[in-house]
Amino acid sequence: MKIAVLGTGMVGQTIAARLAGLGHEVTVGTRDPQGTLARTEPDGMGNPAYPVWAAAHPEVRLATFADAAAGAELVVNATSGHGALPALEAAGADNLAGKVLLDISNPLDFSGGFPPTLFVKDTDSLGEQVQRAFPDALVVKTLNTLNADLMVDPASLGEPSSVFVSGNDETAKATVTELLTSFGHTDVIDLGDISTARGTEMLLPVWLRLMGALGTAAFNFRIVR
Amino acid sequence: MKIAVLGTGMVGQTIAARLAGLGHEVTVGTRDPQGTLARTEPDGMGNPAYPVWAAAHPEVRLATFADAAAGAELVVNATSGHGALPALEAAGADNLAGKVLLDISNPLDFSGGFPPTLFVKDTDSLGEQVQRAFPDALVVKTLNTLNADLMVDPASLGEPSSVFVSGNDETAKATVTELLTSFGHTDVIDLGDISTARGTEMLLPVWLRLMGALGTAAFNFRIVR
Repeated sequence: MKIAVLGTGMVGQTIAARLAGLGHEVTVGTRDPQGTLARTEPDGMGNPAYPVWAAAHPEVRLATFADAAAGAELVVNATSGHGALPALEAAGADNLAGKVLLDISNPLDFSGGFPPTLFVKDTDSLGEQVQRAFPDALVVKTLNTLNADLMVDPASLGEPSSVFVSGNDETAKATVTELLTSFGHTDVIDLGDISTARGTEMLLPVWLRLMGALGTAAFNFRIVR
Repeated sequence: MKIAVLGTGMVGQTIAARLAGLGHEVTVGTRDPQGTLARTEPDGMGNPAYPVWAAAHPEVRLATFADAAAGAELVVNATSGHGALPALEAAGADNLAGKVLLDISNPLDFSGGFPPTLFVKDTDSLGEQVQRAFPDALVVKTLNTLNADLMVDPASLGEPSSVFVSGNDETAKATVTELLTSFGHTDVIDLGDISTARGTEMLLPVWLRLMGALGTAAFNFRIVR
């Protein structure tokens, strides 16, 4: 499948590499490709600059948000929470219309320090904001409840764990579930319409505290039933 | 141990019965014992009226919030979210001082219908509100992330799952962890101080949607790592 991955950070890189490895034709979208390719410093989390990663993944193209989305059958939003709507606006409503939009972003607000709070929650969600802003896109919120490495290789935990999908379109959720299964997810739980993204986005506060308590991000929720 | 369980609803009944079964001396606290004993109708969830339950548990005493707390070494708050602070005020700060206060309440607001929202979240929590209101109590937030039957018998799921503790006092958390272990909990995760209750209280939105998606409340989170 032709897939656009919007966002050049750790999540975007990890998802793009995994999709390319599975044989998909992947284009990473960014605001300014020249600027992205001119980066030399690691990001704030110590991840290598995009060109370092790109050199190891020559099969992945880099393009503007709009060009990446235009050529894609499915679009992954792997931006930060604050970056989501601006990136999707740059991608363009026309380039998203009728397409599955797999949204991983979390509404984290780091302005008050660590742990971050949520800039939308409880009575609304970032997933719903994205769906309202792009009513013709088929938004599916997923993968926002685990770290990047586990998103694409949950089997590395050595024990089954769970992942969630929220979205209004059943066919879009089926497509996303198929992708998730190809990553190794064995327990994909359909929570319902996009408003159920409130639930998974509000998992982040306990995720962050678990990371602190366990001293690792290599964990995931399993729904035992 | 002499234990007070504040709240006569399903959670209070379930916890009280389990503690009594383990040999503890249990007193259930209520605002108006005479009124509680005069009830004949099931509650809104179809649970039997308190006197019906009490007849099956003659070893559990019923008393005012204050009398129950005064005679207890450890106090369990099993009220609703809105009921928590009023019940604890009725119990009295003096009767809570220096004691472990195991707080199960969740800040659910049903005024907008189902699913409920949270009346405190993200930058504060009900656990912290309770700790601030009763600075001499040793508040430990726990058990608020699973249904009543599983709180006291997690082994019935047939697979290990996790439960969390949040609190400022290490000795109080150790006491609560021992109680949880006696219920059958095998993975008690200490998230840190009472502010980490923000995380577990914010699990409720996804818990509620999982209940809808799975069609059962008989599930729990396991932290796979």
